Amino acid sequence: MKVYNFSAGPAMLPEDVMKKAQSEFCNYADSGSGIMELSHRGPQFSAVIEQAESNIRELMNISDDYAVCFIQGGASMQFAMIPMNLMGECADYADTGTWAAKAVKEAKGFGDVNIIASSKATNYDQIPVIRHWKPTKNASYLHLTSNNTVAGTQYHSFPPASKTAPIIADMSSDIMSRVVNVNEFGMIYAGAQKNIGPSGMALVIISKDLAERVPSTVPTMLQYKTYIEKQSMFNTPPTFAIYMVKLVTDWFKTQGGIAAIEEINDIKSECLYETLDSSGFYTSPIKGGSRSKMNVVFRMPNEELEAKFVKEAAAQGMSGLKGHRSVGGIRASIYNAMPLAGVETLVDFMIEFENKNG
Amino acid sequence: MKVYNFSAGPAMLPEDVMKKAQSEFCNYADSGSGIMELSHRGPQFSAVIEQAESNIRELMNISDDYAVCFIQGGASMQFAMIPMNLMGECADYADTGTWAAKAVKEAKGFGDVNIIASSKATNYDQIPVIRHWKPTKNASYLHLTSNNTVAGTQYHSFPPASKTAPIIADMSSDIMSRVVNVNEFGMIYAGAQKNIGPSGMALVIISKDLAERVPSTVPTMLQYKTYIEKQSMFNTPPTFAIYMVKLVTDWFKTQGGIAAIEEINDIKSECLYETLDSSGFYTSPIKGGSRSKMNVVFRMPNEELEAKFVKEAAAQGMSGLKGHRSVGGIRASIYNAMPLAGVETLVDFMIEFENKNG
Repeated sequence: MKVYNFSAGPAMLPEDVMKKAQSEFCNYADSGSGIMELSHRGPQFSAVIEQAESNIRELMNISDDYAVCFIQGGASMQFAMIPMNLMGECADYADTGTWAAKAVKEAKGFGDVNIIASSKATNYDQIPVIRHWKPTKNASYLHLTSNNTVAGTQYHSFPPASKTAPIIADMSSDIMSRVVNVNEFGMIYAGAQKNIGPSGMALVIISKDLAERVPSTVPTMLQYKTYIEKQSMFNTPPTFAIYMVKLVTDWFKTQGGIAAIEEINDIKSECLYETLDSSGFYTSPIKGGSRSKMNVVFRMPNEELEAKFVKEAAAQGMSGLKGHRSVGGIRASIYNAMPLAGVETLVDFMIEFENKNG
Repeated sequence: MKVYNFSAGPAMLPEDVMKKAQSEFCNYADSGSGIMELSHRGPQFSAVIEQAESNIRELMNISDDYAVCFIQGGASMQFAMIPMNLMGECADYADTGTWAAKAVKEAKGFGDVNIIASSKATNYDQIPVIRHWKPTKNASYLHLTSNNTVAGTQYHSFPPASKTAPIIADMSSDIMSRVVNVNEFGMIYAGAQKNIGPSGMALVIISKDLAERVPSTVPTMLQYKTYIEKQSMFNTPPTFAIYMVKLVTDWFKTQGGIAAIEEINDIKSECLYETLDSSGFYTSPIKGGSRSKMNVVFRMPNEELEAKFVKEAAAQGMSGLKGHRSVGGIRASIYNAMPLAGVETLVDFMIEFENKNG
């Protein structure tokens, strides 16, 4: 049976990518060794990491003013590295749920954190209205979480760029799922395991000027400068994860780049939201204009039905649909690698389930 | 052609392990997904990480007083985490070369570092004589590097255990290559990419008491306590790397455990050192009693011959024999996964090369 994995991450990767990685797993480029067995300083891996960076630069249209780094520890390590490197006395943060709040918590150890926008009062059912945000005068940056996997919300526009307090965006769950203008950000970062690869690293795109801010007391492995100066090879990088990112970004290019990927992502999410909106059975808790195109969350009349839904969907080859343990309900994570056919299968099942149980 | 990869790391993995990982790469345990595509909170990966830990505990005979953690960032991140968590005012370090010196450099940002033993004066050709070491009175720990990949040296005994200043050993290049008594250490750590898996994580075995020392100002992702309390799952761990460690440690068990692995490692290294010692052509720069069983370094009469050796060996399927760029010469890294047949092939080639060029 064909399985569509709707889990929030680690998530499914493109089938072609998985098959290619499998075919050369034990013998990369006729070397007699798997890529994970080869030295990170050798010619094979050097070509892989260079191509991965070049793919990302091309796909996201990144200028030479920005560095592209591969850093271990996922987005959670970035929650600490960002204030450690860049905070100075104070920084602004927008609170849009679980992950944004974790970033806030880590930053508090390094300076004054001003929450200049929050949707906590309404249970994170929306992105706070941007024109109401009041940046703090001496803030060194503004941190936001572009897509919120637990709540199911997403920014569909961003605050205006600022020279003194550049935007730092956690794009862990929507990186390369839509076209963004990198120049509007001081830094963009993302754990790889949702849209661009396996778990075990974060992609960090940072303005080179910004990276110079680091205090000299920060340990070498926690300075962005180290990764910039050494092309992410100060120490042994997570070679297999970077290799997978190279394959996934190769695949994005064959699909027509991020604009083409975004078009399919739009269709996938519209397909699901239309089903929700035309139903008297399923409901979306998210305010219009804030709905995520990556994590579509919805509720049913009661929790028993939700449990039944998750169980029956799994039996029909749709796994990982249970909502985050902190909020319950259903969550369909439909990242870049989820084909339209997977979403269509889910929608068919939803209609059938509603007819039987509604 | 069968290729034997003698590179210093990332290094070759057991052939059976690579084949198994390849066979289930796209469909793990009949789930329809690869293990790297599955949620880290799901039943499949939960079983993998539990089995990996259980294998390590069994193989190294680790008591419940110690935690086993999987931490991203490799050993280089540990160079910072150790003093950050455990240093207090001062700590003792032994300097046995490149990697030991890097650990010293990072520690200096956190307190007083006392180098109580060093072989720098003799170009790191030996492990400093342990009975001459004078621990500092108020040191909070003693850090050493059990095997030195660049110099080619290895501790064959360790300083006596101390309650006030426990030994912290970087075993990145000889973890699970020989039997050690974990109870003699406060903490043992190792980047995975030489003996137990791919790059992208460090194995940390730490006394639970010791981990309690951490100052409250340390970021969550940099506290050992976080990994202990959350079984290395505070955030998404490097799931595929942990899965590979599980497979490699499964394989160690089928080989008869670490004592059996050690026996083969002894034969492999003796085979090479005998060849060096019985030759007037090859020379070992390492003092007897300090020779590494993992990284066998040697020289030839001149650098032209060394370059010729590396090139001809590669053409015959023996890759990665070039010495570290900082010291030159030849280095044969013969970690756990290097079969005896690989060493025998190398020895045959060495004899032939000497006959032709000596």
